[in-house]
Amino acid sequence: MGCAFHAPLVSLPGGKRDEELILPINASLSVTLHQDQLKTTTTASISRDFKEDRLWLNGEEADIGQPRLQSCLREMRRLARKRRGSSNNEDTVPLSLAYKVHISSVNNFPTAAGLASSAAGYACLVSALARLYGVEGELSEVARQGSGSACRSMLGGFVQWLMGEKPDGKDSIAQQVAPETHWPELRILILVVSAEKKSVASTAGMQTSVKTSSLLKHRAEAVVPERVAEMIRCIRERDFEGFGLLTMKDSNQFHATCLDTFPPIFYLSDVSKRIVGLAHRYNAHQGKTKVAYTFDAGPNAVLFALDDTVAEFVEVVKRSFPPESNGDQFLKGLPVQPAPLSEELLSAVVQDPAPGAIQYVLLSKPGPGPQLVEDPDLHLLGADGLPL
Amino acid sequence: MGCAFHAPLVSLPGGKRDEELILPINASLSVTLHQDQLKTTTTASISRDFKEDRLWLNGEEADIGQPRLQSCLREMRRLARKRRGSSNNEDTVPLSLAYKVHISSVNNFPTAAGLASSAAGYACLVSALARLYGVEGELSEVARQGSGSACRSMLGGFVQWLMGEKPDGKDSIAQQVAPETHWPELRILILVVSAEKKSVASTAGMQTSVKTSSLLKHRAEAVVPERVAEMIRCIRERDFEGFGLLTMKDSNQFHATCLDTFPPIFYLSDVSKRIVGLAHRYNAHQGKTKVAYTFDAGPNAVLFALDDTVAEFVEVVKRSFPPESNGDQFLKGLPVQPAPLSEELLSAVVQDPAPGAIQYVLLSKPGPGPQLVEDPDLHLLGADGLPL
Repeated sequence: MGCAFHAPLVSLPGGKRDEELILPINASLSVTLHQDQLKTTTTASISRDFKEDRLWLNGEEADIGQPRLQSCLREMRRLARKRRGSSNNEDTVPLSLAYKVHISSVNNFPTAAGLASSAAGYACLVSALARLYGVEGELSEVARQGSGSACRSMLGGFVQWLMGEKPDGKDSIAQQVAPETHWPELRILILVVSAEKKSVASTAGMQTSVKTSSLLKHRAEAVVPERVAEMIRCIRERDFEGFGLLTMKDSNQFHATCLDTFPPIFYLSDVSKRIVGLAHRYNAHQGKTKVAYTFDAGPNAVLFALDDTVAEFVEVVKRSFPPESNGDQFLKGLPVQPAPLSEELLSAVVQDPAPGAIQYVLLSKPGPGPQLVEDPDLHLLGADGLPL
Repeated sequence: MGCAFHAPLVSLPGGKRDEELILPINASLSVTLHQDQLKTTTTASISRDFKEDRLWLNGEEADIGQPRLQSCLREMRRLARKRRGSSNNEDTVPLSLAYKVHISSVNNFPTAAGLASSAAGYACLVSALARLYGVEGELSEVARQGSGSACRSMLGGFVQWLMGEKPDGKDSIAQQVAPETHWPELRILILVVSAEKKSVASTAGMQTSVKTSSLLKHRAEAVVPERVAEMIRCIRERDFEGFGLLTMKDSNQFHATCLDTFPPIFYLSDVSKRIVGLAHRYNAHQGKTKVAYTFDAGPNAVLFALDDTVAEFVEVVKRSFPPESNGDQFLKGLPVQPAPLSEELLSAVVQDPAPGAIQYVLLSKPGPGPQLVEDPDLHLLGADGLPL
């Protein structure tokens, strides 16, 4: 099973209204990226020969006992049992449900890059188990219990995670706002900040926020509901200016609430701030919002632009963060044509270049939800149940 | 006349509810620093021989025509005229009021250090003109019209700037909460961040905040009034833990609202964040709040501690930001005794040292309001009305 990362449009703090069920304090919106660029692939298999449940992440065996993972596994087995109409009688459970499971998961993207990989990972896990056990229907609620925003990776295109009201979380699920084909011109540019330039680590976990930040509470109650509605309108009407402005404002406000927690959390580094400044200067020079930034829980930037802007803006990025000639590819993902820059644009937008501050740039676009990997050569576990 | 800088305790954005009169959107609190460490000295003189009003800043002639300065000059001349009971008849104004004025102002502190020098500067200007024209009484309202927070430098010790309600600003004045002698153990440590490590420039002025940040509005209305009352209680009771916690939280929230403006304003650099992390680790190791940070509109940190903590914490700062051996003095201001550090403290608190990131450290304490400079050798203008 293949699943993609997603980028936030209306952000959500890590803190929860229910930490156990992972119920959020506000609704949120994201766009699922294309699996050609940012994919987690997961294979799950069962066999009467397996002695215990086991897990491999990027080829290394990992602890399958972690509570989040066990929640998902338990929930998927419960749904499988229920589906077979045998939830009340352990004896009639088909043999396969008693079998142990082996799971292997691989990212085609360095996890060290700081892009939240757990969302794609848990979406993939739940999708692979669903396929294995023949479970169908609404599964974002299960993925949510693995890693909150994983529920948004269970769908393609533009996805809302509803806040929900029920204490059991049954209504805190993902909903598609528009499919990945809805806005064909939209491009997503990820600027991966060089490791050595990354921000100092945050001093505390995000759960603190919900308890300590009065701004976060105000944002969740008074700001986000309107923003989600407005963002959905912008997406439906393919209004890039509205979409871009709101994305930037919401990212800034999310990071503001991180700073208002105690102890404060800083995700943006000086390089992140340079990217913010660059985007604002570029838009000011163009006289309208042509690129928009958002930052998740780390210094890497996700930028949105329409396809007719990408070539020029990528050139601006290269001039502002001259690649270090270490032989690595600077531009990854979808191809980008070289574009000439006017002297006027250069002098107005490119200021004080920071060589090597950006490790690489990856161009992607909206993509679909979990996809079955048909090619058996791409499966990650061999007939013996061990990673290939 | 000598006036001191001050450090924020409950912060205020640069944006105003009335830009012309400089009326703030919330009350604020600060502590005035001692003039022995951070002083602006201003001399004002009048003479029938002066051809025009003139101004020198740090020895260089500057534009006396700037509107803020003209407001103060006009207002002080008006008060002088009023005092002499001749406000209705220009002809009876004493000769000296028609004379032109020469003003010279000097900081004993590099203005490039990013500490707001305009507050001390305008407080000094107003005090010097008051002395010159024989004007007495409440003058913080005049200083406020030069540079908002200058009103707080018109008093010593712990000072509140009342928000006020009147449209003409007559009630938006400074009030002393406690004199500089109230808390003799309190020390103020300024960590000046090296110029080359400073943050990228902010992308917009602060006036934008008032219009674009919903968090700032919420803070001003729902958070600050309670905080000011709580901070006054902490000061009166000399409750360092309460004082320190609230100072840090308020600084963080102020910078959060800067980030929530659009385009966002970043004052904190990666070095600022390192200082924040250091303070939190130190307090965690001590099991209580022994140092507290606040940041104004720049990356330099102002730290508060009681005198029995200073020596050890300064050593922690030196280990965390090893001074570059460029011959400059690293410790300035009040003397600091060397202190041994336990291995336990070192390993818990000093992480990943950043050599040269801090240019120097200045130790100060609360100080008085504007002071007349008695020594004629320290006056800045000669008998000819030109800088000495």
